[in-house]
Amino acid sequence: MAQPKAPDASRRSERSRRAIFDAALALVGEVGYDKLTIEGIASRAGVGKQTIYRWWSSKAAVLLDAFGAVVDEYDQEGLPDTGDLAADLKTVLRATADEFNDAAWQAPYRALAAAGANDEELSRTFVGRLMEPGMRVYVDRLRAAQETGEVATGIDLRIAAEMLMSPFSQRWLMRTGELTHDYVDTLVDLVLHGLRPRD
Amino acid sequence: MAQPKAPDASRRSERSRRAIFDAALALVGEVGYDKLTIEGIASRAGVGKQTIYRWWSSKAAVLLDAFGAVVDEYDQEGLPDTGDLAADLKTVLRATADEFNDAAWQAPYRALAAAGANDEELSRTFVGRLMEPGMRVYVDRLRAAQETGEVATGIDLRIAAEMLMSPFSQRWLMRTGELTHDYVDTLVDLVLHGLRPRD
Repeated sequence: MAQPKAPDASRRSERSRRAIFDAALALVGEVGYDKLTIEGIASRAGVGKQTIYRWWSSKAAVLLDAFGAVVDEYDQEGLPDTGDLAADLKTVLRATADEFNDAAWQAPYRALAAAGANDEELSRTFVGRLMEPGMRVYVDRLRAAQETGEVATGIDLRIAAEMLMSPFSQRWLMRTGELTHDYVDTLVDLVLHGLRPRD
Repeated sequence: MAQPKAPDASRRSERSRRAIFDAALALVGEVGYDKLTIEGIASRAGVGKQTIYRWWSSKAAVLLDAFGAVVDEYDQEGLPDTGDLAADLKTVLRATADEFNDAAWQAPYRALAAAGANDEELSRTFVGRLMEPGMRVYVDRLRAAQETGEVATGIDLRIAAEMLMSPFSQRWLMRTGELTHDYVDTLVDLVLHGLRPRD
């Protein structure tokens, strides 16, 4: 087992990690995934190359963790819960659509998804680190709605979350359609209609 | 413009194309996508390598057309229409799940999807040649159900078809869950509940 680090060292590590993530996300937006290098990230973050290699084996691994850190913050907050499930889902999915439509964000995320389609291990990491935690916050929000009676009991909430998120992801990944606010609103309304308590 | 071929030449061409498709699909199941070669396909199909290169520029292009020929047959038939939308969708999606779970079929289709995630042009061909025609037969079946009153009027049938097919495709492509008959049945029931005429 590793020795626990002294608080100062641990704070310094955390600062370096954060600087590396910020550098990786900024740089990949500027130069694209193919031209992104560990050297470039190190130089932008103001750390030595060896600092990065101590923690990560590849640029894909750095990016996965950098996106993962964003996802973690988001997951700790959970989805908004104003008591109106449709409104909350539309708010979040509209914001997500704007994010997915932003080229700086889109390119590296797509590159990771693509790399994962070829590489089963990377794919499992991508799914486990980035997609599944996102899916869980939707399942949690649907469960809260089930408790207040907005969603019928007995519904498989995991499948319900897939009905919302998979059409959205696939449109983006396969470029089969635009991610507009109208699209998001229609999707949310159609899915929620199916989840309503049955009368 | 090319000269129209004499009927005999055209029949021979069609026989060769069919032999090439059969060879490509059989061989990719046996040796995998990475080891598939144009030479191997030609030899299995009993044609010269040049015959293949005259029509296709790469093994990906041959496979796209080979899968496309399967899709075309399926599209001409359309989905079954027994008058019971839920039963018909379950029949087709269960059979599709069995097909997607078959390793011989899965490997080349996944290889094409993965190659497409990296290559925008291939991706557009993959989507246009294989995914969109599949989506259209679902939209057509939903439209027929709308006409008989099983599906509410005014519903965006394209989005409804995505609610069925995208969760299914994404489970498979990202390996986020099993494609079982139970899964298919639950998905169909949840989606159709949302599409029912609203009372």
